[in-house]
Amino acid sequence: MSAEPGFNAADAPFMRRALQLAEGAMYRTSPNPRVGCVVAQGGRVIGEGATEAAGQRHAEIVALDDARARGEALRGATVYVTLEPCAHFGRTPPCADALVAAGVGRVVAAARDPNPRVNGGGLARLAAAGIDTACGLLEREARELNIGFFSRHERGRPWVRLKAAASLDGITALPNGQSQWITGPEARADGHHWRARACAVLTGIGTVRDDDPQLTVRHVATPRQPIRVVVDSRLELPRTASLLQTEPDKVWVAHALPADEAEPRARLLRELGVQIIGLPVDAAKPGKTDLAALMHALAARNVGELHVEAGARLNASLFTAGLVDELLLYLAPRLLGQGAGIAPFGPLSAVDQALRLERVEMQAFGPDWRVRARVAGPE
Amino acid sequence: MSAEPGFNAADAPFMRRALQLAEGAMYRTSPNPRVGCVVAQGGRVIGEGATEAAGQRHAEIVALDDARARGEALRGATVYVTLEPCAHFGRTPPCADALVAAGVGRVVAAARDPNPRVNGGGLARLAAAGIDTACGLLEREARELNIGFFSRHERGRPWVRLKAAASLDGITALPNGQSQWITGPEARADGHHWRARACAVLTGIGTVRDDDPQLTVRHVATPRQPIRVVVDSRLELPRTASLLQTEPDKVWVAHALPADEAEPRARLLRELGVQIIGLPVDAAKPGKTDLAALMHALAARNVGELHVEAGARLNASLFTAGLVDELLLYLAPRLLGQGAGIAPFGPLSAVDQALRLERVEMQAFGPDWRVRARVAGPE
Repeated sequence: MSAEPGFNAADAPFMRRALQLAEGAMYRTSPNPRVGCVVAQGGRVIGEGATEAAGQRHAEIVALDDARARGEALRGATVYVTLEPCAHFGRTPPCADALVAAGVGRVVAAARDPNPRVNGGGLARLAAAGIDTACGLLEREARELNIGFFSRHERGRPWVRLKAAASLDGITALPNGQSQWITGPEARADGHHWRARACAVLTGIGTVRDDDPQLTVRHVATPRQPIRVVVDSRLELPRTASLLQTEPDKVWVAHALPADEAEPRARLLRELGVQIIGLPVDAAKPGKTDLAALMHALAARNVGELHVEAGARLNASLFTAGLVDELLLYLAPRLLGQGAGIAPFGPLSAVDQALRLERVEMQAFGPDWRVRARVAGPE
Repeated sequence: MSAEPGFNAADAPFMRRALQLAEGAMYRTSPNPRVGCVVAQGGRVIGEGATEAAGQRHAEIVALDDARARGEALRGATVYVTLEPCAHFGRTPPCADALVAAGVGRVVAAARDPNPRVNGGGLARLAAAGIDTACGLLEREARELNIGFFSRHERGRPWVRLKAAASLDGITALPNGQSQWITGPEARADGHHWRARACAVLTGIGTVRDDDPQLTVRHVATPRQPIRVVVDSRLELPRTASLLQTEPDKVWVAHALPADEAEPRARLLRELGVQIIGLPVDAAKPGKTDLAALMHALAARNVGELHVEAGARLNASLFTAGLVDELLLYLAPRLLGQGAGIAPFGPLSAVDQALRLERVEMQAFGPDWRVRARVAGPE
């Protein structure tokens, strides 16, 4: 790569198309990033594709195959790809090698692959083979698209998106625990979209006890169900829980018991296919799971985007631990008066200690509103 | 008036202008309604005006005087007025008589005056004098403009608009009581606009104790300060309270003490010019003021629009008593975790008992959002 960006305005439409293709792979690629690829020849698209399900073809291969199927010549073509082509053998051979073999003339990537096994190595291999390379075109958009993948590689923890549904006065459940349905069907379906794109959905044993949710994706079509993770410090998850009735091998239970205490209960769950994750106890909260350790454990297990649907207590603990990156909040046009708040962390002693939200977007959503915001930390 | 509406599309622009003139009188007319008037001759505006401060000229007189000052002939003119002309001697002589004397040919009103001393009588007097009359053009807009005036005449209680400022998680004050400043300067200034247009601003003794507010209009220019009303069931308002330091004769204190117990404290406040309103005790809440009785007392004292800026407890009591008509809520892009809610009424036992909000409008407002909604009652 030269010091120059190596791309120009004429490249942007092709990369936009590649980003669009990647969007189309939103629900299926986890734990792999969702990537889009466009092959152009003389300013004309001759092949395109997006990442298939994990273990199947990467975007570059799909796009090269597409061009070949159309009878197009690849020699000297320009390849636009939303993430640097891989240079390592994972479940599939390196894409960089396939591009070299195809004889393409130029490769433009939107962002470097943060995976330490790639991280510039893919582009370097291409350059070494005499292919013109460039990186950074529409990088911001490309990073957003795989925000969880970048987070797990760059920060060693998932991108944590916390979802809540509340009345306009911030109540998520009545004092008697009732919480269904505060918001309407549009918000509910949208919530399932966010579940579907996540690598994993996290909840707490309290929510399992109170609401017995399935936590599967139902209101949108998806080729893949996310992992469901239960924070269950004392390993009390009953085998009858609804979330164990479908694909229990995609359920992980995190606990903080000593190994010997954990074993009898763990064995019963393992029989169902459940994975058990033993974690340290939170130094500040006797008996409770260390949530920062949980996040590292999840990232190590390839969880990039983590979607949290939990109760007020776990929400509050995640905020207190500084582990929430994004808030996805549905607000209903009604008042409930009293009940559980969204995330009753604190108490704070001054208003300027508030948790600030950035890049906040609020829009009508059916009869409700949807708020999306990034957490900016204390003021 | 005939059974026909008596107006047509050509009339609407004049009435719209009259409504606009009435808007311009927003802060000054209380306890009178804000009224606008346009005099037209041959499709041309020859005079216009809006209600002056209480005791001064009504809109019709201002508009007639304006036409005369311009040297225009009034005979046969059409008069557009946003509220039926008055037919009674108040602090000013009846406008209907002035219109008859001016020899105008036609009067179009947006809405009947709900004041039992008028209520069709103004239009009847005009008709009896041979003037063509019509009523109902842009009536909805005209009623909105004087929503409090209609409320006090038609329902015997003010239109109650409750203002609150909260974090996105619905917290209005930290557990230690701190509540300034959750929202930004734009929201604060807008809050003063709503104070300015109200006949009175209501708060509770708890808020006086905790925040010692002035409750005057400061961030917008106004020719009139609203009455400030304190719900102070045991008559504990200290003479040193900030709100007694400016225009104490515009402060009313509502209590629920027996007369003999009230007297010594009432006397001290009366010396400052404060008006004392003795009310019954709430049958359900020993020692607390009956809030429905308070509302009737305020309407009887010509309070039409009532702006509430109170703490969580008084807010909750007002909601519980079904006395809140409108919510004006500013939401800040931050989370405070724990603290006082907006109006912790209840507890409810089912989500479908929620207080529904209607005609809800939410918009960005500086760094915050402003929510305006009408209370629709339980589902």
